[in-house]
Amino acid sequence: MTNPVLVEVVRSGFVESVHRGALVITAPDGSVRFSAGDIERPVYPRSSNKPLQAVGMLRAGLTIDDEELALGCGSHNGEPGHVEGALAMLSRAGLTEDALACPPAFPLHEPSMLAVASAGKRRAAMNCSGKHAAMLTTCAQVGWPTDDYAAEIHPLQKIIQATVADLTSETIETVGVDGCGAPLFAFSLTGLARSFGRLVTAMGGPERRVADAVRAHPWQVAGTGREDTVLMRTIDGLLSKGGAEGVHAFALPDGTALALKIDDGAARARLPLLLATLRHLGIDPGDEAADLARDAVLGGGKPVGELKVAAGLFG
Amino acid sequence: MTNPVLVEVVRSGFVESVHRGALVITAPDGSVRFSAGDIERPVYPRSSNKPLQAVGMLRAGLTIDDEELALGCGSHNGEPGHVEGALAMLSRAGLTEDALACPPAFPLHEPSMLAVASAGKRRAAMNCSGKHAAMLTTCAQVGWPTDDYAAEIHPLQKIIQATVADLTSETIETVGVDGCGAPLFAFSLTGLARSFGRLVTAMGGPERRVADAVRAHPWQVAGTGREDTVLMRTIDGLLSKGGAEGVHAFALPDGTALALKIDDGAARARLPLLLATLRHLGIDPGDEAADLARDAVLGGGKPVGELKVAAGLFG
Repeated sequence: MTNPVLVEVVRSGFVESVHRGALVITAPDGSVRFSAGDIERPVYPRSSNKPLQAVGMLRAGLTIDDEELALGCGSHNGEPGHVEGALAMLSRAGLTEDALACPPAFPLHEPSMLAVASAGKRRAAMNCSGKHAAMLTTCAQVGWPTDDYAAEIHPLQKIIQATVADLTSETIETVGVDGCGAPLFAFSLTGLARSFGRLVTAMGGPERRVADAVRAHPWQVAGTGREDTVLMRTIDGLLSKGGAEGVHAFALPDGTALALKIDDGAARARLPLLLATLRHLGIDPGDEAADLARDAVLGGGKPVGELKVAAGLFG
Repeated sequence: MTNPVLVEVVRSGFVESVHRGALVITAPDGSVRFSAGDIERPVYPRSSNKPLQAVGMLRAGLTIDDEELALGCGSHNGEPGHVEGALAMLSRAGLTEDALACPPAFPLHEPSMLAVASAGKRRAAMNCSGKHAAMLTTCAQVGWPTDDYAAEIHPLQKIIQATVADLTSETIETVGVDGCGAPLFAFSLTGLARSFGRLVTAMGGPERRVADAVRAHPWQVAGTGREDTVLMRTIDGLLSKGGAEGVHAFALPDGTALALKIDDGAARARLPLLLATLRHLGIDPGDEAADLARDAVLGGGKPVGELKVAAGLFG
């Protein structure tokens, strides 16, 4: 099955590039309410996986406050507050930055990157350092080894894998290595959307704790000027988490959920689809998020086009 | 027509993303020797256009040495030598950096960017500043206004458009605005490949001068660690020029030429296709270029996959 074009890249009125992909909206009961493309084929959820991984950490016995739990679900900007948060978690677990398996990186946030340019890359600035610090904290608290915590066969990763299978109601057949070095589980977009719906509709337990922590601390999950942070600040009760290679998932407080994957992995195609889906669901995504989408196609520094959701996607 | 998958992004043995597109190889006589996908639909050639634009500048009367002509065809790294080259051209034309219509930018080359991080973005560091400096030099030498040199109706741009139509043997029906603010002409991949073939097989004139200048100064055209520079240094007589949104073109000294466009605009999909095409044509692209392609899929900072050209693309 060839997935449909979801987004067109228009420059000076001419369609220059296109992004194909698949998108599913599930109802609060988990049934498919809308779909485009192949939503049953397994995909790597990349960082949209993080809230599910965090549920696994809590199930394994992690004790953590809400703000750090949100950072543990984050693909953060590497702003000073994010880096300090990861280092503080490590310090309380009796560990240092060297314990992180994620690779050294510059902050994603340009002003933060420019400020530390001369100091160079570091592990704590990598966007996944909060997740890795939370994984290490879990191991330190439970008494598991911390040196191979990111190995697929480590007991923490086994619990996380079982949690992901439980929350998605799917069998995990493919385990890969994520960009940060942690195990990465392939499952369908339907499974991803359903799992987000389960988090927000849980009456309590680790599922609801993760959903509430992320929604209470949206800056920890991404940062200044980022899609997830802006959308969660604007839309009451929204749980939203993007991932690399063009993945995104969100859930509304009633359990209606979305998951999408851009075939080619383009990050730029996600936001226009998130805005269009929210509007389709009767929700105003707000001016700040719409502004983020505005400067996508520039010529001489000025907007000369747009990323346009395919006509008729939502009928 | 749906273009075929040209490149698969494989992570831990699993196809995570795919890049569709079109690719044409033309023979020295301009006939189509190989094709995949729709090679007749117009595309924006982006910076693969630059050698053709430079021929237009020479036809308009530009006097310039070979090294600066190569910089004028370049999408340079913003390394100190590139920035100095653009500024020197401007200075000789009696102009300053403010005359450039291309937007301020940081150097593409990471070490150069980090070195100037505190000084901020500048127009001369933008990858197209050489082309803009060459356009301004043309105007200053010929006696045309320099303040609106990037407008579609400026006499320089009219000559460039006529040159592009001539070299591609196509009618230009769409004129857009490129990322740098200069006019951008849409034509087919077949036209792009043929025009590169014409440059290298010309017995003299502006066409051959551009081809020879670029091949003699491959560092000016891109820079340290960049595909075009590495390939042209390795392969005798190769003329190669990439562009934004997944475009690339090259010509071998006998006039055999390639043009490709990735549907989704991904830059990463180009190099594997260039390497595979060169090998298909019996040319060893060399270890340095193969090394550039090697670290495309990382996990925890280590290679965990690859960008794989679709099986059977070349039969």
